Amino acid sequence: MEPYDLWYWAEIPGRGEFVRLALEAKSIPYRDRARAEGSAALAKDMTRPRAEPPFAPPYLVCGDLCIAQVAAILLHLARRHELAPAERLDFANQLQLTISDAVAEAHNVHHPVATGLRYEEQKAEAARAAEAFRNERIPKFLGYFERILSQGGPWLLGEAWSYPDLSLFQLIEGLNYAFPRRMRSLAGDFPLTFALRDRVHAMPELADYLASDRRIGFSEDGIFRHYPELDPG
Amino acid sequence: MEPYDLWYWAEIPGRGEFVRLALEAKSIPYRDRARAEGSAALAKDMTRPRAEPPFAPPYLVCGDLCIAQVAAILLHLARRHELAPAERLDFANQLQLTISDAVAEAHNVHHPVATGLRYEEQKAEAARAAEAFRNERIPKFLGYFERILSQGGPWLLGEAWSYPDLSLFQLIEGLNYAFPRRMRSLAGDFPLTFALRDRVHAMPELADYLASDRRIGFSEDGIFRHYPELDPG
Repeated sequence: MEPYDLWYWAEIPGRGEFVRLALEAKSIPYRDRARAEGSAALAKDMTRPRAEPPFAPPYLVCGDLCIAQVAAILLHLARRHELAPAERLDFANQLQLTISDAVAEAHNVHHPVATGLRYEEQKAEAARAAEAFRNERIPKFLGYFERILSQGGPWLLGEAWSYPDLSLFQLIEGLNYAFPRRMRSLAGDFPLTFALRDRVHAMPELADYLASDRRIGFSEDGIFRHYPELDPG
Repeated sequence: MEPYDLWYWAEIPGRGEFVRLALEAKSIPYRDRARAEGSAALAKDMTRPRAEPPFAPPYLVCGDLCIAQVAAILLHLARRHELAPAERLDFANQLQLTISDAVAEAHNVHHPVATGLRYEEQKAEAARAAEAFRNERIPKFLGYFERILSQGGPWLLGEAWSYPDLSLFQLIEGLNYAFPRRMRSLAGDFPLTFALRDRVHAMPELADYLASDRRIGFSEDGIFRHYPELDPG
């Protein structure tokens, strides 16, 4: 088959990583265009006339297909490449959307005022936002996934992995990076969710990818950022 | 058919309204459970054991089905009740997710620090967030929908209305309520998008509903809130 073109900022894992993990775990051929050609090529591609234009990266292009929004991309890939059982796609989508909400909230912690401003311009607001996120929101999200896993498991949809598992892994990885002290203090309360992170990390389907330089590390340019003052422990 | 049970907070339009508009526009039978029984009944229902539990309202129940997350609910309804052409569901879903992002950002304006705190506890942060939202984000979102509509129209998917039109209507209504000065100043720049709002408002399929007391008005308890200091004009 013709490879997909994935368009996402070259320098950060960000939201593109949720798509990459799904493509890699199923060995679906794709070209990571902005990583090959630079983020300027992405900015240029965004202005290209299209019948169904994306609002923002990431987006996936294949022939006439152009699809944006992580949850929509993953649902499309899931149908086409069996990334979740056909009869569980509604629930897979719902789980992915809840993960997306958590990702957006994690970003808002260091950018509570405006995405267009730098962290240094909103540090005071971020400190207040981080406290609420650490104390209320992280346990609420983890508690939800723990409840699901406690009803069956060992994967979110039961006996076999599906794309929301990959996304939950990336969410936990991001939270571990951004809030290491808080996450260590919570690990004992959500053992099944933390075990799921380990289970995805050990997937043979991901071994090559996770060890490769295609896997981009977290940094203070991305969604999940480690600012020690936001994770005082 | 058995009516759907919609569960959402009784006092606000909120995210439940995006589901209500779709149900009403297709005359799909449903019971608005928390409006009939009170929000305490919703809080109780949330704790009920379920194979696929919701993270948060709104959620829709019908027999064995329980589905949460607005975009997932609407996609499910669209497939079952022809709320969008089958071959355009990916794009409809993408549009809905972009509308959902705008809705979340509109909420963050008055709650930039924490959902669990009151507006009065984060007014200073909200003032800064509102400035960026008014100046940068509202035009960016409206510009995206204007681009789509300028490529065809008069509806987002072309010749016939589909569920993202209903949601875009509700988004514009909410922004008109929360930021009336700013939205008046932008109307001339995005004529197709504002005309779409009028077109949905005039849909015969919605006439009864919009005139009924099933339609809940905006208020300062909801997602879209009018605080004059956040819309100085």
